[in-house]
Amino acid sequence: MDYSAEALRLHGQYRGKLETVSRVPVKTRDDLATAYTPGVAEPCRRIREDEAQAYRYTCKGRMVAVVTNGTAVLGLGDIGPKAALPVMEGKAILFKEFGGVDAFPICLDTKDPAEVIRAVELIAPGFGGINLEDIRSPECFEIERVLEEKLDIPVFHDDQHGTGIVVTAALLNALALVKKEIGQVRIVLNGPGAAGTAIIRMLMAAGAKQITAVDEHGVLYPGRPAGLADHKQWLAGVTQPVGRTLAEAVQGADVFIGVSVPGALSPQMAAGMAKDAVVFAMANPTPEILPDEARAAGVRVVGTGRSDFANQINNVLAFPGIFKGALSVRARDINPAMKLAAAKAIAGLVSPEELREDYIIPSPFDPRVANAVAAAVAEAARVSGAAREG
Amino acid sequence: MDYSAEALRLHGQYRGKLETVSRVPVKTRDDLATAYTPGVAEPCRRIREDEAQAYRYTCKGRMVAVVTNGTAVLGLGDIGPKAALPVMEGKAILFKEFGGVDAFPICLDTKDPAEVIRAVELIAPGFGGINLEDIRSPECFEIERVLEEKLDIPVFHDDQHGTGIVVTAALLNALALVKKEIGQVRIVLNGPGAAGTAIIRMLMAAGAKQITAVDEHGVLYPGRPAGLADHKQWLAGVTQPVGRTLAEAVQGADVFIGVSVPGALSPQMAAGMAKDAVVFAMANPTPEILPDEARAAGVRVVGTGRSDFANQINNVLAFPGIFKGALSVRARDINPAMKLAAAKAIAGLVSPEELREDYIIPSPFDPRVANAVAAAVAEAARVSGAAREG
Repeated sequence: MDYSAEALRLHGQYRGKLETVSRVPVKTRDDLATAYTPGVAEPCRRIREDEAQAYRYTCKGRMVAVVTNGTAVLGLGDIGPKAALPVMEGKAILFKEFGGVDAFPICLDTKDPAEVIRAVELIAPGFGGINLEDIRSPECFEIERVLEEKLDIPVFHDDQHGTGIVVTAALLNALALVKKEIGQVRIVLNGPGAAGTAIIRMLMAAGAKQITAVDEHGVLYPGRPAGLADHKQWLAGVTQPVGRTLAEAVQGADVFIGVSVPGALSPQMAAGMAKDAVVFAMANPTPEILPDEARAAGVRVVGTGRSDFANQINNVLAFPGIFKGALSVRARDINPAMKLAAAKAIAGLVSPEELREDYIIPSPFDPRVANAVAAAVAEAARVSGAAREG
Repeated sequence: MDYSAEALRLHGQYRGKLETVSRVPVKTRDDLATAYTPGVAEPCRRIREDEAQAYRYTCKGRMVAVVTNGTAVLGLGDIGPKAALPVMEGKAILFKEFGGVDAFPICLDTKDPAEVIRAVELIAPGFGGINLEDIRSPECFEIERVLEEKLDIPVFHDDQHGTGIVVTAALLNALALVKKEIGQVRIVLNGPGAAGTAIIRMLMAAGAKQITAVDEHGVLYPGRPAGLADHKQWLAGVTQPVGRTLAEAVQGADVFIGVSVPGALSPQMAAGMAKDAVVFAMANPTPEILPDEARAAGVRVVGTGRSDFANQINNVLAFPGIFKGALSVRARDINPAMKLAAAKAIAGLVSPEELREDYIIPSPFDPRVANAVAAAVAEAARVSGAAREG
C-alpha cells in the first residue's frame, strides 16, 4: 500500500482526523437549561468552592493536551506548528482509540522554550495531563523539567519517555529469552538525543550498569576533545565508555540500541557482538540495520520501529495506558516508578512460554495492553505518592 | 425542573460534556500507517510547502477555540479558569450541536490581557476561529481588538457581538411588527458594558440614530461629573443623551434594551414609554422587568433571555451559524457586514405573516437557523472581501 497517497486521500476526505462531540443531549429546552444556562452555573459554583471538583464535573480529568511547536516532527525536522498538526491529530486519536483517553492537539507558534512553557501553564486548567510531542532537543529537556515543576498535572514528553519505556519493556523480555541479567550485560546506545537519553535513564532505573553512549563524533566520555553539547556532559559522566568509535564500542557488546540513522550498524559490526546479541534498530523508516542482515550476522533478537517486521517497538504500547492510569488516580506527575511499572506491564504481556526471538513485545493491537499498563501505572502512582485519589 | 440539581447530576455522570473522537478507523496496521506514521508525513509535507493546505488536511478549518480566562462568567463574575470550564464545554457542544462546528474549550490561567493575547496567538495555528467568552470588560475590548489585528483567522467575542446580533434581529422584527422605522425610533440602552456597547454599535450599523446609554450613574454624556470610564467616553460621544436618569430617558422612548440588573425597569417607567413600545429585558436569570408586568404597563413587545418566556433573545441563534459561515469561506475575520447579515438572516426566518407580539424571533431549536445564518455570513464575507475561498 502507498501510505503517502492513501494518507493524503484520507486526510483530505475527512479534513483531518479529530472531532469534538457532545456526550449529552441538547435537543430540548430542558437539555439546554441543564447543559448550559442556567443549570451550568451550579457545577461552576462547586468548582469555584473546591477546584478539585473540576475532575468531577468537567472533561479536565479525561483530557490530555498533545503539545508541540513543530520543531522536530517525525523525520521532517522543524516544519512549524501548522504542518505538525496532522501528527498531533493522529496522536490525539491514538490516545482515544487505544486508551479511551480524550486528547486535543495544541500546536504552538513559537520556538522559544520560555514561551512554550508559559503557554502550557496558561492552558493547563482545562487539561488533566500534558503530552509533549516532537519538540526538538535540547529545548525539550528544559521545557519538560520546568513544566513538571510548575504544574500539578502530569507532563510527559513521549518522544523521550514513551520510547524509553517501550525499549525497556522489549529489552527485559529479550534478555529473559537469552538468559542474561540486565545488570551484567554491556549495552551500546547509538544516538543520545532526547529519546536516546531517556532510554539510558530508563535502563539504568531498570538495573543496567554498563551502557556506552555514542553520537556522530564517537563514544561519549568526560573531556572528549570533540566536545559534549548540552545533556551529553551529564551522559558522559554516568555512562561507561568502551573504545572511541561505534565499531569499537559494539565489539563484544550484548545489546545495540539505535535511535540514530539508517545503516549505522554495519553487518561487520553486528557480527562482532557477543553471543546471543540483541539489536534494536529504530531509525525510521530505514533502520540502523535490516533484521535479515542482523540475523545473518549472528544477532539473535532484532527489533525495529516498523510494523512490517517482527518486534515493533512502538510508543503506542505505552502512552495511552500511561495517561489512562495517571488520570485514573489524578496523578500529580508521571514519576520514574510509574514509567518502570509501565515497562514491566508491557513486558509481562508476553508470558515466558510465549517468548520467542520474533515475539518479545506485544502487538500494538493487543487489546490487553492499555489496561495492563494503566493498572500498573495507577498502582505505582499510589505506592509512590503521585496519586491524589483511588 | 430544578436545573441546578439536574446539571450537577448530568455533569457528574458524564464527567463534563465534551469528548474528542476519531473520524477515521484505527483498527488495522494499514489504518495506523495511514492515519499516523509513516503516511501522515505526506500531509505534513504538503502543509509545510503551502500553509493553506492545513484547511484541507487537518481539523483547523473545522475547529473553533472557545477561549476564556474566567473573569466574567455568567452572573458569577471572576470565578477563574477551572470554574469556567463547564460553561466553555457547554459552549463548545452548542457549536457542534447547533452548527456542526467542532469547538474546544481553552481556559487561560491569567487575568493579564497581554498574556491572554499572547496565549491565543500561540495556539492559533490549530484553529480556524477564536470565540472569546466571558472575559471581563474593559479588558475584553483590547483583547479582541489586538487579536483581530494580529491573527489571520476570525476573532469574535460572543458576549459582545453575539448579543448585538440577536438583539438587532429581534429589534428589526419588533419594529416591523409595530410599523416603526429604526432610523426614527428612540432607543434607551441600560447597562453599557461589553454586550451593551456591542448592541449599540450593531444598532447604529443597522440604521439607529437616537440611542441613549445609561449606566448605574445615569445617562452617559460628554463631561459627565460622575465620570466615564474606559469605552464610555466613546459611547458618550456617539449616543444621544436624553435626561439624566434612566427614568427620564425612558419617558416617551420607543425601545428599552436592558443588559443590566433585575428589576431595573419599573412598571411606572415602562408605562411612560411611547405607544407600541418594545422592551428587551435581558438580565439573567431575573429580567429588568417581567413580561407580564411590562405588558400590563402597556408595552407591546417584550423579549428576555429566558427560555420560559416568549421571544428568547439567545446567542445560540447566532454564533454556531456565524462560525459555520465564516469557516466555510476561510474568512479572515467577522466584519460588521457579516454581523449585520447574520442579524438580518435571523430576523428573516420569521415571515411578515408569522410576525406576532410573542413571535419576533425564531426558536433556538428552529432547525433552519444555523444554515440561514451561515449562508448569509458567507455571502457577506465574499462581498466584503473577508473570504479567502468560495
